[in-house]
Amino acid sequence: MKKIFYLLTLFLSTSLLAQDYTEYVNPFIGTSNYGATNPGAIAPRGMVSVVPFNTSGKGNKMEKDSDWLSFPYAYENTIFTGYSHVNLSGVGCPDLGAVIVMPTTGDLNIHPSEYGTTYSKETAKAGYYSNFLEKYQVATEVTATQRAGISKYKFPAGKANLLLNLGQALSNESGAMVKVVNDQEIEGMRMIGSFCYNNPKTIYPVYFVMKVNKKADRTGVWQQHNKIDGIEAQWMSAYNGQQRIIEDAYYPIIGDSLGAYFSYDFEEATEVEVKIGISYVSIENARENLEKEVSNVSFDEIANRAKDNWNEKLSRIEVEGGSDDDKTVFYTALYHSMIHPNVMSDVNGEYPEAKTRKTKKTDGERYTVFSLWDTYRNLHQLMTLVYPEQQLNMVNTMLDIYDETGWLPKWELNGTETFTMVGDPAAIVVADTYLRGLRGFDEQKAFEAILKSAYPVEGGNPVRPCVDNYIKYGYVPVEDELEDKLWGSVSTTLEYTVADWSIAQFAKELGDQEKYKEFYNRSMGYKKMFDKESNFLRPKHMDGKWHEPFDPAHGANFEHNIGYVEGNAYQYNLMVQYDIPGLVKQFGGSKAFVNRLDEIFEKDQFDMANEPDMAYPYAYNYIKGKEYKTQDKVIELREKYFTNKPDGIAGNDDTGTMSAWVVFSMMGFYPDAPSTPQYALTTPAFDKVTIKLDHDVWGTDELVIKKEGGNTNHIQSIKVNGKTKKGYFISHKDLVGAKEIVFHTK
Amino acid sequence: MKKIFYLLTLFLSTSLLAQDYTEYVNPFIGTSNYGATNPGAIAPRGMVSVVPFNTSGKGNKMEKDSDWLSFPYAYENTIFTGYSHVNLSGVGCPDLGAVIVMPTTGDLNIHPSEYGTTYSKETAKAGYYSNFLEKYQVATEVTATQRAGISKYKFPAGKANLLLNLGQALSNESGAMVKVVNDQEIEGMRMIGSFCYNNPKTIYPVYFVMKVNKKADRTGVWQQHNKIDGIEAQWMSAYNGQQRIIEDAYYPIIGDSLGAYFSYDFEEATEVEVKIGISYVSIENARENLEKEVSNVSFDEIANRAKDNWNEKLSRIEVEGGSDDDKTVFYTALYHSMIHPNVMSDVNGEYPEAKTRKTKKTDGERYTVFSLWDTYRNLHQLMTLVYPEQQLNMVNTMLDIYDETGWLPKWELNGTETFTMVGDPAAIVVADTYLRGLRGFDEQKAFEAILKSAYPVEGGNPVRPCVDNYIKYGYVPVEDELEDKLWGSVSTTLEYTVADWSIAQFAKELGDQEKYKEFYNRSMGYKKMFDKESNFLRPKHMDGKWHEPFDPAHGANFEHNIGYVEGNAYQYNLMVQYDIPGLVKQFGGSKAFVNRLDEIFEKDQFDMANEPDMAYPYAYNYIKGKEYKTQDKVIELREKYFTNKPDGIAGNDDTGTMSAWVVFSMMGFYPDAPSTPQYALTTPAFDKVTIKLDHDVWGTDELVIKKEGGNTNHIQSIKVNGKTKKGYFISHKDLVGAKEIVFHTK
Repeated sequence: MKKIFYLLTLFLSTSLLAQDYTEYVNPFIGTSNYGATNPGAIAPRGMVSVVPFNTSGKGNKMEKDSDWLSFPYAYENTIFTGYSHVNLSGVGCPDLGAVIVMPTTGDLNIHPSEYGTTYSKETAKAGYYSNFLEKYQVATEVTATQRAGISKYKFPAGKANLLLNLGQALSNESGAMVKVVNDQEIEGMRMIGSFCYNNPKTIYPVYFVMKVNKKADRTGVWQQHNKIDGIEAQWMSAYNGQQRIIEDAYYPIIGDSLGAYFSYDFEEATEVEVKIGISYVSIENARENLEKEVSNVSFDEIANRAKDNWNEKLSRIEVEGGSDDDKTVFYTALYHSMIHPNVMSDVNGEYPEAKTRKTKKTDGERYTVFSLWDTYRNLHQLMTLVYPEQQLNMVNTMLDIYDETGWLPKWELNGTETFTMVGDPAAIVVADTYLRGLRGFDEQKAFEAILKSAYPVEGGNPVRPCVDNYIKYGYVPVEDELEDKLWGSVSTTLEYTVADWSIAQFAKELGDQEKYKEFYNRSMGYKKMFDKESNFLRPKHMDGKWHEPFDPAHGANFEHNIGYVEGNAYQYNLMVQYDIPGLVKQFGGSKAFVNRLDEIFEKDQFDMANEPDMAYPYAYNYIKGKEYKTQDKVIELREKYFTNKPDGIAGNDDTGTMSAWVVFSMMGFYPDAPSTPQYALTTPAFDKVTIKLDHDVWGTDELVIKKEGGNTNHIQSIKVNGKTKKGYFISHKDLVGAKEIVFHTK
Repeated sequence: MKKIFYLLTLFLSTSLLAQDYTEYVNPFIGTSNYGATNPGAIAPRGMVSVVPFNTSGKGNKMEKDSDWLSFPYAYENTIFTGYSHVNLSGVGCPDLGAVIVMPTTGDLNIHPSEYGTTYSKETAKAGYYSNFLEKYQVATEVTATQRAGISKYKFPAGKANLLLNLGQALSNESGAMVKVVNDQEIEGMRMIGSFCYNNPKTIYPVYFVMKVNKKADRTGVWQQHNKIDGIEAQWMSAYNGQQRIIEDAYYPIIGDSLGAYFSYDFEEATEVEVKIGISYVSIENARENLEKEVSNVSFDEIANRAKDNWNEKLSRIEVEGGSDDDKTVFYTALYHSMIHPNVMSDVNGEYPEAKTRKTKKTDGERYTVFSLWDTYRNLHQLMTLVYPEQQLNMVNTMLDIYDETGWLPKWELNGTETFTMVGDPAAIVVADTYLRGLRGFDEQKAFEAILKSAYPVEGGNPVRPCVDNYIKYGYVPVEDELEDKLWGSVSTTLEYTVADWSIAQFAKELGDQEKYKEFYNRSMGYKKMFDKESNFLRPKHMDGKWHEPFDPAHGANFEHNIGYVEGNAYQYNLMVQYDIPGLVKQFGGSKAFVNRLDEIFEKDQFDMANEPDMAYPYAYNYIKGKEYKTQDKVIELREKYFTNKPDGIAGNDDTGTMSAWVVFSMMGFYPDAPSTPQYALTTPAFDKVTIKLDHDVWGTDELVIKKEGGNTNHIQSIKVNGKTKKGYFISHKDLVGAKEIVFHTK
């Protein structure tokens, strides 16, 4: 077995917690099957992760320059080319994967296609990863704080090299500056951004300082020279278009595709520690981050701290009963829900303001990596309930971004807005947070911010394209899509209506009846897209005619499909979570609705790997007598798609959205309808789940969920604090006030 | 007439000097015929020059990407693409030509091949240049301090743009970092170096800060994206391999081929001032240079100061009589002798140490751009005599470089050693300076330094390759050349022997008889290369046989020629200035010697455009009765090759070496034999030359040279302080002590 899931605690924990929940974190889950997670070392919501980079080396099964890879690590791959220090986890578009350190032995070789090596003895746990580089006989271990990565390399006697490769990355940007400060320190910056390889204007630098605990015997920089044509080329020696090495360059070298190296002559086997501090503000801040977080702290102590930090986070939910695999799926999912959004502010509170990247300072923590089209559906609800301090950081970051740019974020990445995906998800997150009762942000500003993107704006509304026609027609007419003004007129309409539902509920809560009505009415616009003949939400023309041809099965697997975003008519058929009863009426009643739901699952038109239909299994709860199908489906899907294996996430984890689905589903409740502060109930995976709640926020310390009774997965009855509950939904208020919910199974 | 030589003084000089010598500076001299000078604005020995860049625009006669151009400006060209702020003057290899600012009007266009414009109304004088950009109807003026350039653009009403192009340059390096600080300031750095397009390891950044006196209405950065192949390219939009514009990027953008712009909407015609500070240490220093030298000073005031500074320098030699053209040739040559070496230290005294580029500080001035193979022959002798404070800066810089790198410089460029050309020229410069009596540097260190490069060194002697065989055989055997260990075994031998002569004389002066003998003997090694059959210095094998085939006429015009560097056997036939009497004996007597000298001139084998034979015209002085031929030849060559026209320098000015030849030759004396503190005498071009001497150095204030008598150019007699002088040489000591030298012509 090549990869060993690290169940044993190697380091003495400094924590007093009796239970070590990190035992149940298997960072290899999601590293295959395009889960896009990685086994690298990371602290909770860390800016830095130290990830074994294995997607750009000759001999790998999948290689970023010949496949569409959005991740620095693939379980199937075998060639390691270093540790990257800034990375995305569970994201379907490539970026970052940069600041890569590679240990080698022997003569200096700076070509990744040549210096890559197979590896063995791979282990990973929360905040820790190690392997053995076979070509070099080097044992490596890595760990991380929030803003620094630490590597330990055990070199054999002889020549050794540390290569800091600033060319290789999971980005088609390659500009960098590197300066060898002295024989123990390198500093610089590297351009990243251009998310998905198609956002050429959203590029920006990441800054770093690297410190090594051994003095290098030789140092230098290398750089790829542009290929020059014409008369100049005649004078250039062989370096034209080639890499060149510049020894002893203690000054900045700038350009595309460069790197720096430290070389050593070790008389005996030697352990080398490499510490890299990262910042998005400046080299000085990267140095301060490094010094404040890791200087004078041993590798083992840092690894211990990372583990303790994870343990503190994971311990907020204690599960009992269930197999070790179940627990591992659960805690790994919980772990994955706390990778992104991640901190962007430095230890001194500084961060680059959105868009302009001017340096700003916060007393708290500035977050980044908001994949809101994904996360609005469940991740923020998990945070609101269990980690309200994190959710508040997120909402306040979103409001700061509004202050800085005039707009709430959509798909924010390190201070840039990538405008990836569709809809107005920030409105939903902000409203949902408020509606569940979490306070601690400026609600008036929040309301102002979500209203802004809800209307047409002089010069164009970047969040909601075609919002004018959406308001005019009640839906986005397919003409706008055909004219390339947006992507997926049906999907976009549905995203707008759920945002408008959110605004309506927020308005109601704030006592603004007028806005409530206006946006409630808007939210019902989905009905105009409902074709009562086919019982599908279909692309529609301005004149009210349905767009033809129409094939509800077309558009699976990311085929381009008019009307729909990353899916087909099946996968958007029920994406009206806030008004399933209304949708049922559109269907003509429960029977047709349930039939369609059954059909979707039977025809394999349900896509567990993407977000639009992820609440479908819970839709049976709306139909009296069919709730058992929710119980069956959730367990079936969970056991099929979420396992303690590298391919144990259905698809892209989407910055923890898939994982949040599992976390909720295993606890027995799911926030199926964003901005409707309720949860759909289903059979828990565990005998007992204890959620530690923030007393200041929810007025209570704990919620206990128990599964008792027969051995089937079907629920006989549900008791909330001893009282039998009617129906299979519970409001957020009742849930947090419940103290105990007992599911009696048949 | 397109170009107007600016004879009029436009600005009121603040100087009290009665005479304005800058009236006789025509910066267009040398801008054609590969003189490689430029008409840009520069202060004496300025780090910055502001040069109209016209060698990289579509439509030009000569274009750097299709010709071997080593200069930013060619008189013949017609397309202007901006003002470059760091430039070389009179250098035969390309480098610098970077930090280019281009004013345009209308919509933003960042492509040099499209935004170039024809120009008219070109004027240039010392420290000032102006033109009119026809395409944009923009009048431009530029001036400079030592470390900053200032441009003034008069834009018509409407849209206007300032383009800071960091891609275009006279370098095949293109890496840069640029940051728009705010709507009036841009900072950054750009890689330069790789001198001659073939020194890939000698690259380093130049730092700049640009400030504009008008707030931009729009700002942005552009960058050329590398051409990406493979799967990634499919996702990239049209920007793959193209320029892209990033608006409002107030943060560093790094990579190859980038730039930044300020755009304006002018309601009326508007004058914009752009100030650029340069440093080789840091952006902070570039800003300090700018602030200390030009902030709060008007363009006109800066132009006045530049003129005054030049006037102060030029006024050290006053010439009377002669035509305006003669005076212009003379003062322009004197001006060209004070472009390089130039200051490299910042206003705060900081500069990058040689090789490592670590920041060091000086109380004085650190110089750079030492093209010593050229300048050892006459430029330093001119500086020693008239500008000893500058020569001391040069020698002390050279000794500092020895301290920093372990070696004296050879062809130093901004802290890098390019090892261009052959020989050991620094030894000659240091010895010659000492031998002429200039003190103020550490003579013991100087002696140690020149001795170091005179011997074989473990690991190789980078200054004198094959010095081991040179010592062993008394000459560099042609085998070493055939094995590609060096360039030109005869030429290199001669360079080594003149260096060894210099060391010998220095040793003698220091009282080291042993070293004197050793190096005197070495210096006579040239005789071993003298073939008494052909009377040529010829490539010779280890076994003493002459290398065949041998054609003394082969190798003109830079053809590759075994034995010789940039020349042929004729052009090196007499390059033993320190021992012409000995050489005459080798020839078998005066007759053969004079015959050969005559033959060289008659057969057009004399190359005025290069250094090895530049003292030939003075060689007649060694033959009694033939001195008149020196007088004839010097005048003939001067009038033929050095004129008040763009092609008025024989070839590359070689950082003022050609110009120093003219300056001396027009004053009537020439330092024909480096490290022999003497001057060969000839007919002055002027009736009176008054040289102001540094009393502290030479013990006298003035040397007056007069030409009196008949109208011919032949000398009848020479009187030194009233006493008739014998022979046509004068020692340096006698010259500075002369008070008055009168040439009586026939």
